[in-house]
Amino acid sequence: MENIVSFLLESEKLKSVLRQTKPLGEDRFENSAEHSWQTTLAAMILLESAPAELDRLKILKMLLIHDIVEIDAGDVFVYDEQARQEAFAAEAEAAERLFGMLGTNIGEPLLALWHEFEQAQTPEAKFAKACDRVMPVLQNLESGGQSWTAHDIRRAKVLEKNQPIKDASPELWALVKKRIEEATFLKD
Amino acid sequence: MENIVSFLLESEKLKSVLRQTKPLGEDRFENSAEHSWQTTLAAMILLESAPAELDRLKILKMLLIHDIVEIDAGDVFVYDEQARQEAFAAEAEAAERLFGMLGTNIGEPLLALWHEFEQAQTPEAKFAKACDRVMPVLQNLESGGQSWTAHDIRRAKVLEKNQPIKDASPELWALVKKRIEEATFLKD
Repeated sequence: MENIVSFLLESEKLKSVLRQTKPLGEDRFENSAEHSWQTTLAAMILLESAPAELDRLKILKMLLIHDIVEIDAGDVFVYDEQARQEAFAAEAEAAERLFGMLGTNIGEPLLALWHEFEQAQTPEAKFAKACDRVMPVLQNLESGGQSWTAHDIRRAKVLEKNQPIKDASPELWALVKKRIEEATFLKD
Repeated sequence: MENIVSFLLESEKLKSVLRQTKPLGEDRFENSAEHSWQTTLAAMILLESAPAELDRLKILKMLLIHDIVEIDAGDVFVYDEQARQEAFAAEAEAAERLFGMLGTNIGEPLLALWHEFEQAQTPEAKFAKACDRVMPVLQNLESGGQSWTAHDIRRAKVLEKNQPIKDASPELWALVKKRIEEATFLKD
């Protein structure tokens, strides 16, 4: 139980890890803790119309822990492909340290779950990865491309990076794809 | 799908609802979105040693949505009992509006789930309510009673308000109770 308390106090630090996106209506960058909540919420809702064979509990658990490694490794912008590749070793090490705090019985299954998410091979991991793309796209479409414009991300790249959304919901991807194609604030 | 997008964009506003507790190491108040993440994470971990008959998925879903009514109704400090009672009508109205955005098929079960949490009668709701108490106590014990001291909350009140933690984990409550009893920064 002391281990669990230490882990939960350590998880406080995710509230200080900043991302590239600003919450709508706020002049500050969002942190990875509030993003983790919203992504898990989005998954919960999209799961209502997802195939029955998907393990819902597994998907929500994956998304609750998916960014926790950023406590040690920091957040890497999804469009920065080189940095994303370089970050993996640091993130895997962070996962060992953080889930290791929970001891074998609780920590090892969570470490395995984190790796399953990162590998994006199982249906649950693909669904969870897709959900992780949803909010930044919706936020950018609503804000006039706040984080896309700040990093000069072009329309083709936005379409390429976000098409995995179809793994969670082809219907949502169709809607989002159309809005990306029509967005006047995106450069071609 | 347009409804789901509208709801998810509306959920952004929970990132602007401030609570009484500051994240450890930060000189700002935490918001209800990051609190919702951490509470759901705590539940996920405490569920590892909880009775098998508890519906895990239901508990995580409850905690993901439990604070979303604060978008309209604001956060009310748990120790402010009069304000908590007065807030319920506004929160119930907020729940109707927010879950109503999702239409009948998705919104109605979520509205029912929110009421089940608030009523705290079912084993899942009791467990979820208990988890909602965990983080503010751990945060206060670590920070020297930041939000307790700011509002002159005494030791007996802290013990009374937080004993529901035993509904999620008698072992965690025993540990936390001892620390509350021994905390030199709490007035009797």
